[in-house]
Amino acid sequence: MADDCIFCRIAAGEVPCTRVYEDDTCLAFMDIGPLADGHTLLISKKHYEFIHEMPADEAAHLGRQIPALARAVQEAMGADGLNVLQNNGHVSGQAVGHVHFHFIPRVPGDGLGYRWPARESDTETLKKQADAIRQRLGT
Amino acid sequence: MADDCIFCRIAAGEVPCTRVYEDDTCLAFMDIGPLADGHTLLISKKHYEFIHEMPADEAAHLGRQIPALARAVQEAMGADGLNVLQNNGHVSGQAVGHVHFHFIPRVPGDGLGYRWPARESDTETLKKQADAIRQRLGT
Repeated sequence: MADDCIFCRIAAGEVPCTRVYEDDTCLAFMDIGPLADGHTLLISKKHYEFIHEMPADEAAHLGRQIPALARAVQEAMGADGLNVLQNNGHVSGQAVGHVHFHFIPRVPGDGLGYRWPARESDTETLKKQADAIRQRLGT
Repeated sequence: MADDCIFCRIAAGEVPCTRVYEDDTCLAFMDIGPLADGHTLLISKKHYEFIHEMPADEAAHLGRQIPALARAVQEAMGADGLNVLQNNGHVSGQAVGHVHFHFIPRVPGDGLGYRWPARESDTETLKKQADAIRQRLGT
């Protein structure tokens, strides 16, 4: 546990939250700064700042919760869609340095969205990038 | 397999892709309409339109790949951060109706981001929303 981490303190029960799911490994609760009605967070109880630091078994456990939680959040809010979002690093929009998955219900006209324009790509560039990624994966 | 689904056809090897990882259950490859250098997609080989339709075991398997893939993509691109994003429904920005996780490397000044302003919340509203979600989770 990181003493100065608000999500560690929530996981430890030192800071209250509005809980929707909990087991030995993870906790889901309502975001208090919601982007949409029903905005829910899923966190690991152990402290990892970034997803790439999380052991595969724990990431698998979090992944296992995603379908049921996504369904429950979307249906409970009567939403038409839902974003699952996990940010790593200040540059990505990560506001709390403890791994968390956002579940953000979406409805038409909610005004949410990206300013993420897709770009053109060329096969050679993609191949070079894939080579660099594969090299690090060892695949 | 859904015959009219481009990601099913990629998973089946009928449509080429620039692959970075593959096993019996999932496939990771470069997005051909990248939002950033190194933008990678992780898909299930089986066809599910939305994450809430995916069996928990398959979601766990995908979740298990996320840390290593996030690390490889971010490091290979020399990025400072990374977003993991999974969209469900047209309203959420889902462009291909086959579950996929985006891995989007981020660097300062890349111009990407959200127009997702956080809002105020009140505890009573959050409790009501949590009750509705828990009811559907059966927790």
